[in-house]
Amino acid sequence: MTHDVTVDDIKRASRELSNWGRWGADDQIGTLNNVTPAHIVAAAGLIRSGKVFALGVPLSWPLQSTPQKRWNVIHTYMVDGADVHAGLSVGGIQYTDDAIHMPVQCSTHWDALCHILHDNVMYNGVPATAFGSRGPAKNGIENTVNKIVGRGVLLDVARYKNVDHLENGYAISNDELDDCAAAQGVTVGDGDFVIIRTGYQERFLARGNWDGHSYSEAPGVAFENCYWLKEKGVAAIASDTYCVEVRRYYNDGLKDPWHQVVIPSMGITMGEMFYLKELAEDCALDGVYEFFFCAPPLNLTGGTGSPINPQAIK
Amino acid sequence: MTHDVTVDDIKRASRELSNWGRWGADDQIGTLNNVTPAHIVAAAGLIRSGKVFALGVPLSWPLQSTPQKRWNVIHTYMVDGADVHAGLSVGGIQYTDDAIHMPVQCSTHWDALCHILHDNVMYNGVPATAFGSRGPAKNGIENTVNKIVGRGVLLDVARYKNVDHLENGYAISNDELDDCAAAQGVTVGDGDFVIIRTGYQERFLARGNWDGHSYSEAPGVAFENCYWLKEKGVAAIASDTYCVEVRRYYNDGLKDPWHQVVIPSMGITMGEMFYLKELAEDCALDGVYEFFFCAPPLNLTGGTGSPINPQAIK
Amino acid sequence: MTHDVTVDDIKRASRELSNWGRWGADDQIGTLNNVTPAHIVAAAGLIRSGKVFALGVPLSWPLQSTPQKRWNVIHTYMVDGADVHAGLSVGGIQYTDDAIHMPVQCSTHWDALCHILHDNVMYNGVPATAFGSRGPAKNGIENTVNKIVGRGVLLDVARYKNVDHLENGYAISNDELDDCAAAQGVTVGDGDFVIIRTGYQERFLARGNWDGHSYSEAPGVAFENCYWLKEKGVAAIASDTYCVEVRRYYNDGLKDPWHQVVIPSMGITMGEMFYLKELAEDCALDGVYEFFFCAPPLNLTGGTGSPINPQAIK
Amino acid sequence: MTHDVTVDDIKRASRELSNWGRWGADDQIGTLNNVTPAHIVAAAGLIRSGKVFALGVPLSWPLQSTPQKRWNVIHTYMVDGADVHAGLSVGGIQYTDDAIHMPVQCSTHWDALCHILHDNVMYNGVPATAFGSRGPAKNGIENTVNKIVGRGVLLDVARYKNVDHLENGYAISNDELDDCAAAQGVTVGDGDFVIIRTGYQERFLARGNWDGHSYSEAPGVAFENCYWLKEKGVAAIASDTYCVEVRRYYNDGLKDPWHQVVIPSMGITMGEMFYLKELAEDCALDGVYEFFFCAPPLNLTGGTGSPINPQAIK
Repeated sequence: MTHDVTVDDIKRASRELSNWGRWGADDQIGTLNNVTPAHIVAAAGLIRSGKVFALGVPLSWPLQSTPQKRWNVIHTYMVDGADVHAGLSVGGIQYTDDAIHMPVQCSTHWDALCHILHDNVMYNGVPATAFGSRGPAKNGIENTVNKIVGRGVLLDVARYKNVDHLENGYAISNDELDDCAAAQGVTVGDGDFVIIRTGYQERFLARGNWDGHSYSEAPGVAFENCYWLKEKGVAAIASDTYCVEVRRYYNDGLKDPWHQVVIPSMGITMGEMFYLKELAEDCALDGVYEFFFCAPPLNLTGGTGSPINPQAIK
Repeated sequence: MTHDVTVDDIKRASRELSNWGRWGADDQIGTLNNVTPAHIVAAAGLIRSGKVFALGVPLSWPLQSTPQKRWNVIHTYMVDGADVHAGLSVGGIQYTDDAIHMPVQCSTHWDALCHILHDNVMYNGVPATAFGSRGPAKNGIENTVNKIVGRGVLLDVARYKNVDHLENGYAISNDELDDCAAAQGVTVGDGDFVIIRTGYQERFLARGNWDGHSYSEAPGVAFENCYWLKEKGVAAIASDTYCVEVRRYYNDGLKDPWHQVVIPSMGITMGEMFYLKELAEDCALDGVYEFFFCAPPLNLTGGTGSPINPQAIK
Repeated sequence: MTHDVTVDDIKRASRELSNWGRWGADDQIGTLNNVTPAHIVAAAGLIRSGKVFALGVPLSWPLQSTPQKRWNVIHTYMVDGADVHAGLSVGGIQYTDDAIHMPVQCSTHWDALCHILHDNVMYNGVPATAFGSRGPAKNGIENTVNKIVGRGVLLDVARYKNVDHLENGYAISNDELDDCAAAQGVTVGDGDFVIIRTGYQERFLARGNWDGHSYSEAPGVAFENCYWLKEKGVAAIASDTYCVEVRRYYNDGLKDPWHQVVIPSMGITMGEMFYLKELAEDCALDGVYEFFFCAPPLNLTGGTGSPINPQAIK
Repeated sequence: MTHDVTVDDIKRASRELSNWGRWGADDQIGTLNNVTPAHIVAAAGLIRSGKVFALGVPLSWPLQSTPQKRWNVIHTYMVDGADVHAGLSVGGIQYTDDAIHMPVQCSTHWDALCHILHDNVMYNGVPATAFGSRGPAKNGIENTVNKIVGRGVLLDVARYKNVDHLENGYAISNDELDDCAAAQGVTVGDGDFVIIRTGYQERFLARGNWDGHSYSEAPGVAFENCYWLKEKGVAAIASDTYCVEVRRYYNDGLKDPWHQVVIPSMGITMGEMFYLKELAEDCALDGVYEFFFCAPPLNLTGGTGSPINPQAIK
């Protein structure tokens, strides 16, 4: 696959990989159906040492470096300790309160199945007209509130390739993913939550600022990855970048072709901007790249996604 | 304990139950320290059938029925399907986007240790002056991002007492909690996440509106519960009401005396407005009131709490 | 006119009163075109005593008593005096800062011409598809930034009828408006800003709470008023209620029929929830019901309206 | 005055220029008291041609180029035309709605007297402790709702100096202001609203982007201007920059020394980021640098300022 991904490629893959109707005409969770109770019970067996890794970045990180469409979390305090100190407490108790105003996708998050449409249709044939300013009639993130639990697998592509981070514009092929898995002693299969590490986020962390983080040509999986996801039967995919797929400029202004297939046609729930540094270091140390994974979205009715703090438990 | 809880009672309990310094002068997570890796590994053994219960209420529920200080979640869409349908998509992809503006404590949430002060001081001796409008220097919810995993125990007090819901103003005694646990065949111990069901929330659900939900005299644990928590060594406590403790009117305008002890003195992380209906029905059915519990907060730097969607996994 | 206003009535009035094309195919300000520079110069002559009346209600008033769709102003402080007192000032200066989050129509405001459509079309034939989630291509409030200056006329209907306030559901007829004007010694003519006082707002003010303020059957002008507005050639109309027209329940769920004519067909800019108490008292005292009027909207690109603080200067 | 402005200079000027008590112990509007009804009546005489200039910049301009503390206006639509087109209208009417979330000082605005403190005290001796997270007890912008009407005077310093814009770091002296006024045939006196044009904003407008607009060393009045303001007896001062005074780096991290005098000690209401291009062109053309000025703030209870759209009427 190259920069030459076309609308026809999208249409062909959408047709060939479609999961519409596969889990019923009313299905709203797509490939999360791949997770069975047995998978969850088996994944519990991966909890061996009681170590817990939090994969949500601090909401204070200004990842939206080009705040055109999404903004960084606005966090304000309605009551605080300085009020208490100033003698301004009321009501017989000294308390504090705060609020957040944030795009659901401005920090570590899941994309919901209503986040991307193709040819005016959402996953499982739901028309664009079913989703006005009051929210989608179907495919909101609330459908997945108890569905994001199972076996997690880390594919640390950057470490596999012996680099701190993949270069911008680098497209990870399916073969590389398989080779990486093999090298790291793990297999990817039915109902798995696959997490790809590119080192992209840590590059900015090391540099100490987030200029150029958003709207860059971040590295990520190649377009062909949609076929790999179907073949493996994964439950969901996530990454440390803001778009999982490689961000490139295509002909005719085409954008994010992989998104256009995996969300509306396949029904993949997708995670972005995961914090992977410590988990990856631990996996490298003990050689174990699988773990119990629990990453519940907020119960946001009609959300096109949700901020999250995923947990990897070993 | 009665309506006669006084400032002196608060001071005595604060002194007797204090955990300041117990886990070091810099500790910011309090009783979450009670959870050990061994507890987590043991809790994994409770995952037997692969059933997952989401305990976060829909963010669309208007639980703040008296929106004086906190408001209900404001959920707006920056791009939606109707835009796509109207031919207004830009940038070579059909996507949708939304944002939320919410007090962190307006729906299912954890309270952080910086949420309540007593005598101008937070947990572990942090002064009020360390917490201005830009956020607390210590005790924010971000300290707990990977600490809320372990064994969960449901104490279904309403079911134990054979009622749909406890009456407003009803104070659950320590003996009742012990009797309820015994009747439901479960013990509460070191490092447990204890969840109390009063039926309060389901009362409004059944009625079909939330008038009077907030600022009511909701039922909950009595003041003496702070001693019980210490004795049991629990990690955290949660409930289906908006304040866990019984909400009463005390002399001299005193408010929420239990809060004033368990958060600033003991360092208890507290969960409110948990959705317990289906979990409770399942526990009643199989007689198993314990489960794997994973309820990660958002990584909200300086949060006085965090919206959550806790997971109970059996 | 009665509760029997029908879709046909709306269609007929829309046709008969249409101002589409009257001021050019690209016009976006409608009847504000009725104001000429000569009107403004003449209105300046009404400034005789230097008294200024502010007609914007405090943004802290919770006028949205049923916060289903619009909410009351959320006002938060990013830095405050208590921070300064606590020694938390940074940057060599002691400053304070705040922010507002508000629907543009939750308090005293103008409605813009893009606020109401009829049969999928806005004023001057602009189609609904020109107004997606990123804002309207035309008819936003920004077109009026320097157009809301001229002669203001108060028609104090409540005072004319010798009541504190008109009853809910009361529809003011055209004859009554003319009689009221005559009784109050004022004429309404070309380019005037007409302000109707019903006493509705002061009823709540006197009572001390806003329960039932929004979504009530507030009194206001009858449907036939659209003909009166055209005949008089007014620039804009405003009132102390939240909808100017009488709010009634019509057959077939029809709502706000006058709105459906005066905004999309006639291009009337409309003001709601004006604070009229002191202005009305002063007019009653000196018998002068006309004044210089200056009520600039914020320069809100694409706004469906704008919060305002109109000025009546005598 | 030079870059050597010291804390002592601030203290001396604060003492010498203080207006505390001058208009009563309870005064909350400071130099706006300089405007008398007679001034307003006289100013009405300046309305000769009926031309109206709107001085508020579009709220869509991203003036907060470094969104660390303040952010650009967030403008979202709760209902829009695309919803109507998609057949999603409800309630018998086709309407649209939107909301804004903005720091009151992120765009064209007035600073209120509670915006700056000196030595922990606000204007007229109000202590910092009177202003917690719930808002100031005194000196909020709501006190000025009907007080910002009178004679406006434009001092077009850039045009006077024959440059498109003053250079960054340029400090306008008192003599220059007087010379500019003389050259432009206008005098500044009691109760005037003085508006200074530096060309700063138009420099960015011409360049087509706002990078570096905020937190730059914008040109503006020198520290000594505080004496000039007192001598002239002005009502308020405004400018096309974001801080009116020259923004420089001073010793010991001292910041905005002029602010620290004119707001807390003198009680000056200050306007920032005014849009002056067309007004200035018109004044240059007709040689008339005075006009009727009406710039009402929103009635924002406790606001540290307010977004505005000032009107200059000639």
